[in-house]
Amino acid sequence: MSERRVYLDHAATTPVLPEVIDVVAAAMATLGNPSSLHASGRHARKLVEEARESVAAGLGARPSEVVFTSGGTEADNLAVKGLYWARRAADPRRVRILASAVEHHAVLDTVDWLAAEQGAKVEWLPVDATGRLDVDALRRVVEADPESVALITVMWANNEVGTVQPVGEVVAVAHEHGIAVHSDAVQAVGALPVHFGDSGLDAMTVSGHKAGAPVGVGALLLRREADVVPVLHGGGQERDVRSGTLDAPAVTGLAAALRSTLADVPARSAALTVLRERLVAGVRAAVPDAVLNGSPGGLPGIAHFSFPGCEGDALLLLLDAAGIDCSTGSACTAGVPEPSHVLLAMGAPHEQARGSLRFSLGHTSTAHDVDALVAAIGPAVERARAAGIVNVATSRSTGGN
Amino acid sequence: MSERRVYLDHAATTPVLPEVIDVVAAAMATLGNPSSLHASGRHARKLVEEARESVAAGLGARPSEVVFTSGGTEADNLAVKGLYWARRAADPRRVRILASAVEHHAVLDTVDWLAAEQGAKVEWLPVDATGRLDVDALRRVVEADPESVALITVMWANNEVGTVQPVGEVVAVAHEHGIAVHSDAVQAVGALPVHFGDSGLDAMTVSGHKAGAPVGVGALLLRREADVVPVLHGGGQERDVRSGTLDAPAVTGLAAALRSTLADVPARSAALTVLRERLVAGVRAAVPDAVLNGSPGGLPGIAHFSFPGCEGDALLLLLDAAGIDCSTGSACTAGVPEPSHVLLAMGAPHEQARGSLRFSLGHTSTAHDVDALVAAIGPAVERARAAGIVNVATSRSTGGN
Repeated sequence: MSERRVYLDHAATTPVLPEVIDVVAAAMATLGNPSSLHASGRHARKLVEEARESVAAGLGARPSEVVFTSGGTEADNLAVKGLYWARRAADPRRVRILASAVEHHAVLDTVDWLAAEQGAKVEWLPVDATGRLDVDALRRVVEADPESVALITVMWANNEVGTVQPVGEVVAVAHEHGIAVHSDAVQAVGALPVHFGDSGLDAMTVSGHKAGAPVGVGALLLRREADVVPVLHGGGQERDVRSGTLDAPAVTGLAAALRSTLADVPARSAALTVLRERLVAGVRAAVPDAVLNGSPGGLPGIAHFSFPGCEGDALLLLLDAAGIDCSTGSACTAGVPEPSHVLLAMGAPHEQARGSLRFSLGHTSTAHDVDALVAAIGPAVERARAAGIVNVATSRSTGGN
Repeated sequence: MSERRVYLDHAATTPVLPEVIDVVAAAMATLGNPSSLHASGRHARKLVEEARESVAAGLGARPSEVVFTSGGTEADNLAVKGLYWARRAADPRRVRILASAVEHHAVLDTVDWLAAEQGAKVEWLPVDATGRLDVDALRRVVEADPESVALITVMWANNEVGTVQPVGEVVAVAHEHGIAVHSDAVQAVGALPVHFGDSGLDAMTVSGHKAGAPVGVGALLLRREADVVPVLHGGGQERDVRSGTLDAPAVTGLAAALRSTLADVPARSAALTVLRERLVAGVRAAVPDAVLNGSPGGLPGIAHFSFPGCEGDALLLLLDAAGIDCSTGSACTAGVPEPSHVLLAMGAPHEQARGSLRFSLGHTSTAHDVDALVAAIGPAVERARAAGIVNVATSRSTGGN
């Protein structure tokens, strides 16, 4: 249906690589539960273990450090809940969770739940105007009472504005005090060099469908010394850390996608940077007062703008009508527009946070895609501004927000 | 690799239907995150909602009662943890969980964890020698203090011995006292008529890969009034009950598989019953002292035997060498043989519990498969018995178990 559409939402999901579809379909036609002891089971187990070795090699981990999950959200839940429960069980003083204020909802909502229902005390770590963590603030918060910290969770790169976080500095501070660190690297894998071993992280989240694999598969890389309580209990697969029948076709697809994606990170990153610069220059020329958010040196595929006087949702729908897929960058699954917590944490006023769009490039992006956006953005902003005036008037008269 | 193998382990996983592979592969080639608002996202959302309607129609549920998950294990965790947390939050007295003693590990280990770490009090409900729940015992346990029960969980049909549980009677007892009931129907769906609405259940677990869909997808059917706390927090997909990017290809595959599988339950059940009778008669003729476990009227595809004097694992490996895939029926993912908790709950002595095999038939099974087993079982038992004598001697001398 979308052959003629311009897809600028690769950070939400990117096309599955054609060769990966073939690999997954072929694996689906083979039979066997990887936990079964017979020949069919052993064959399925072999597919899984080969995938584990491949994923580990690609990301600088040991095979035994790869825990396959159903995706990034599950891996984030497992890391944050699992580390919290395990550290607290080992030492009841350890109830504090330190998290950056710009985490993905899979971390943010998990942390909120642990605070509301499981006795955790949360401290949200501030970021600067570019979205980058304030490491000095982190150090102060840790050193105020290091023995009470269960874990620190700071994403590798932000999914909305693309800002890369100082994960190495976070690890350095944490490990002075024996504190475990988790990082959601969903957006970083494939876009930046990511080496789990070198990072010093205790746990790192990987998602398949942001890297050319299908939806429904991901991994938590977990240092062997890191103890986590499972989120899914059952048959004891994955070293008793994650139960559920191992999905041999999906993990085979994840491995194949990462092999392709990780093979040319520098080249793809360079190509995306060129496209992104074209996009940024074009949007700025068309809408001179557009504000580029984020930090220089961020993810090469993400360009996030605020358009003063516009509602992001209105702009999204106008571009949609013009055949262009993009995102407001904020979680809005219920259709209720809320300002992005990321932009608010960066100090943006509500209006600016609500008037933002994320354009994200990926492995199928072309200069044609960028040019189509550049041609459409000016008229769309003009219309959104006109509509925005009407909306403001309407919402004032009805008391809406 | 397994073209010539005889696969008698359909209860562990059954071949994906060829037409389902095509459906899933085609959906993987379409682009879009079902939570995105643009056209590509709406197209993916449409696939998901059509799948939801199809799954609901097939299982007697409303579309809004279908919560897609990564599989049966996740659905069991969500039902048991989610109902426990929600019921206890609504009324702090509700801390008791009543569960049959023969549940799948995805329920059993979940309940154990809630007892060990989350303040639950567990009562394991006894079964008779055929594995069937003692409903009078359930009634006594409930009526001792109905206000303190958070939930009851009783599987629809047992995955090891095939015994069908009196789910309707459980629901009747529970609902007298306003207690929620969950049932793991993973083995029942496709083998028996299953109608969620008519069952009266509050929550029911469905797995894809036991019904011709791929691994990695399942569903929790959840009555609209049933409140559950999420196990996976994040973007708020699936009515805020289960976060994580919706896996449009997988749920499309689940729907397609269930349409095929549910279309001819009576015919397939009749065909499996004929094959099973041939298998039971043949095994009994070859090994006259083999004991058939379970209950008449159980799952049509499962035949579970104890072979006196044999180690189940030894027998499994001997049959494996003869080209036959089957299972001991016990969870044994770590390769450490443990007697089945199901058989122990049925009152079988340890030795009998360890000397058991499950043969499970499915949509690709033929009389040839059965005859191959019947030809192989006698010599295999003879060898396993000889080895068993050696093993007993060895394990006595080394103190092993």
